[in-house]
Amino acid sequence: MKPLIPATEASSIISDSLAQLPAETVSLDHALGRILATDIRADRDAPPFDRVMMDGIAISMYNHKLGSWRYQIIGTQAAGAKQMVLQKGENAIEVMTGAPLPTDADAIIPVEKYDLQDGYALPHEGIEVADFQHIHKQGSDGKAGDTLIKAGSKLGANELAIAASVGATELEVYRLPRIHLITTGDEVIPPSETPTDYQIRRSHPSAITSLIQAQQLGEVTHQHLQDDPEAIEAALKTALQDSNNDILILTGGISMGKFDWVAPLLKKLLGEPEFHGVAQRPGKPFAFWKGEDTPKVFALPGNPVSVMATMHHYVLPSLRKMLGMQQEAKTLPLAEDFHWELPLTGILPYKAKNGKITIHPPSNSGDYISLHGTNGFTCIPPHAKLSAGKTLPLS
Amino acid sequence: MKPLIPATEASSIISDSLAQLPAETVSLDHALGRILATDIRADRDAPPFDRVMMDGIAISMYNHKLGSWRYQIIGTQAAGAKQMVLQKGENAIEVMTGAPLPTDADAIIPVEKYDLQDGYALPHEGIEVADFQHIHKQGSDGKAGDTLIKAGSKLGANELAIAASVGATELEVYRLPRIHLITTGDEVIPPSETPTDYQIRRSHPSAITSLIQAQQLGEVTHQHLQDDPEAIEAALKTALQDSNNDILILTGGISMGKFDWVAPLLKKLLGEPEFHGVAQRPGKPFAFWKGEDTPKVFALPGNPVSVMATMHHYVLPSLRKMLGMQQEAKTLPLAEDFHWELPLTGILPYKAKNGKITIHPPSNSGDYISLHGTNGFTCIPPHAKLSAGKTLPLS
Repeated sequence: MKPLIPATEASSIISDSLAQLPAETVSLDHALGRILATDIRADRDAPPFDRVMMDGIAISMYNHKLGSWRYQIIGTQAAGAKQMVLQKGENAIEVMTGAPLPTDADAIIPVEKYDLQDGYALPHEGIEVADFQHIHKQGSDGKAGDTLIKAGSKLGANELAIAASVGATELEVYRLPRIHLITTGDEVIPPSETPTDYQIRRSHPSAITSLIQAQQLGEVTHQHLQDDPEAIEAALKTALQDSNNDILILTGGISMGKFDWVAPLLKKLLGEPEFHGVAQRPGKPFAFWKGEDTPKVFALPGNPVSVMATMHHYVLPSLRKMLGMQQEAKTLPLAEDFHWELPLTGILPYKAKNGKITIHPPSNSGDYISLHGTNGFTCIPPHAKLSAGKTLPLS
Repeated sequence: MKPLIPATEASSIISDSLAQLPAETVSLDHALGRILATDIRADRDAPPFDRVMMDGIAISMYNHKLGSWRYQIIGTQAAGAKQMVLQKGENAIEVMTGAPLPTDADAIIPVEKYDLQDGYALPHEGIEVADFQHIHKQGSDGKAGDTLIKAGSKLGANELAIAASVGATELEVYRLPRIHLITTGDEVIPPSETPTDYQIRRSHPSAITSLIQAQQLGEVTHQHLQDDPEAIEAALKTALQDSNNDILILTGGISMGKFDWVAPLLKKLLGEPEFHGVAQRPGKPFAFWKGEDTPKVFALPGNPVSVMATMHHYVLPSLRKMLGMQQEAKTLPLAEDFHWELPLTGILPYKAKNGKITIHPPSNSGDYISLHGTNGFTCIPPHAKLSAGKTLPLS
């Protein structure tokens, strides 16, 4: 193992090696959670016409100010119907929410503020009527050509409603990273099988795949291999040559054990890694190959907590960068003091409540059960005495 | 319209009418984001055996304390292999991370802390060795039979890893609510079509469907109807009789306009609603029928911001309750003072940053463009003078 490098340096090395993925087109109905690659612009003003915002009558303020309190109703302007014309100042047109404002009208009196009598609307005495009241003016929310959503934005419900409204039914989004996961270990069996006394069931594929899928950060394929160097070498060769893979994730086999074949074989196939060993807990044996013509290789330690910590701290931010995500880093302040004695960066799970986090260090890197109910991982510098209120990065 | 009822009362009436949906079984691979209906218990201790946590040698502390600093290596205990026996106190067994601890051994010396010579391990001078060091004791994280994840928990990556590890490959989760959405309006056309001057494109289906899908709170079907009372009545009848629908959502047609057919027709078909009109902004005309033998009916106002506000404040919490979600209500404190002059409850979008929220009131209930970049809605009581730091509920 090379000398340990600081966790900050490991993050920089990885980040510098990443390129943004190309864009692809998806339909509006399949764009939820994806990252926009091309700005969405307004095709028309928003709203596109002076839009009635209340059921009532449309009138001319000029006449109203002259003292007109009796209006002849000359028709009904429905939403979705062509704009009518008021014609004379003493006229009124019944209007419905969503309808275009009739020509020459410049105020709406709501339906509950007048009486109808023999085809006339008689506004109640003393009501106040202001210029353009209950009218959503054309272009008041945005002008044709305005950028409404910038590339790099995540498409949620608000954004897809905007896209629909401007007719953006085919959206350019960044292609999802393709991740191939190789797990190794003679002691792990499929979750559906019954383990012997010295076996355990495989949990890494569920953990890693769900973590990536939950945030829509990529597509994951998986294979498991026994601790057999020939089989591992063959699988690594295939995975490294497969141009379909953007990223290769391995779990385990990178420490100093006799049967830790993964790191030696990757070195044989790819040469020395960018780093192998990071001054952090958990996840010290973590190694990374930037792979110019091959997928990038994240070789994660095999303990379940180490897997989750390094996934959160290194892999998820990498996927976000490849996806072109323009997003402020998430941070939250500590609810209480936290002292971290070790000369290593701590990558530790937290629980968030009312805008503050409490750190929940697992008892050891195998204690994945304690991760239930935690909300993610944060990062503590070596030898840190942090006071309540200190803002920490979340991954 | 009946007299307006307070927003808190509207929430109570809806909540009291909701029943939890039945459970269904999904496979582990399809359980992400679902709500667990039956506790997940440990089938074995966690870890299931005294588990080696370091590559190194396993030794007996009894002999070590007697001064033994030279160990004959009698074999290698791999992960996934049957437990070996140390036999004699001066023996050592090479062990790999993840392996079962050999019988009679009670400490691990890490591989970097001894030298190998002629089949013997010679620990470095002065190293400290503690009882059970680098051993993950059987049952130390949990005992067989322990409840690991309670019913009502949302299944994220941590939870699915735990499920995999205990062999829970078929999971009981609550069935997703089935929501049928009926939008109405002559003025709205499909997003793929080009509107005339007085038309707009339909955005409600994208907004509502994505909002529900993003949080995996239900399955949505949709149909759009023109402002034609016969067509609306027929569609309502069908939707109300369809036992496949748990919830019916309508947008628009519930105000006092001439072409507001939805509310009158629902009253004709279902009788008077639980309420029609809530003292809130936006979303005042909101109506609700609890539908004993029919789907529950949420009739939302048609303005885009009103739709999002009432979806967040009433519909999403209802879906969570039907899904049996046991989750603390989310809250965050205000970043700055906020004064709300109106005698109505405000349902307003916010942006969250570093654990605090800033409220971003839209300029009007048509201004859906301003929702881009906001993180959800919060709720402000009538006539509220709120100081920075005041904790508000998030929906």
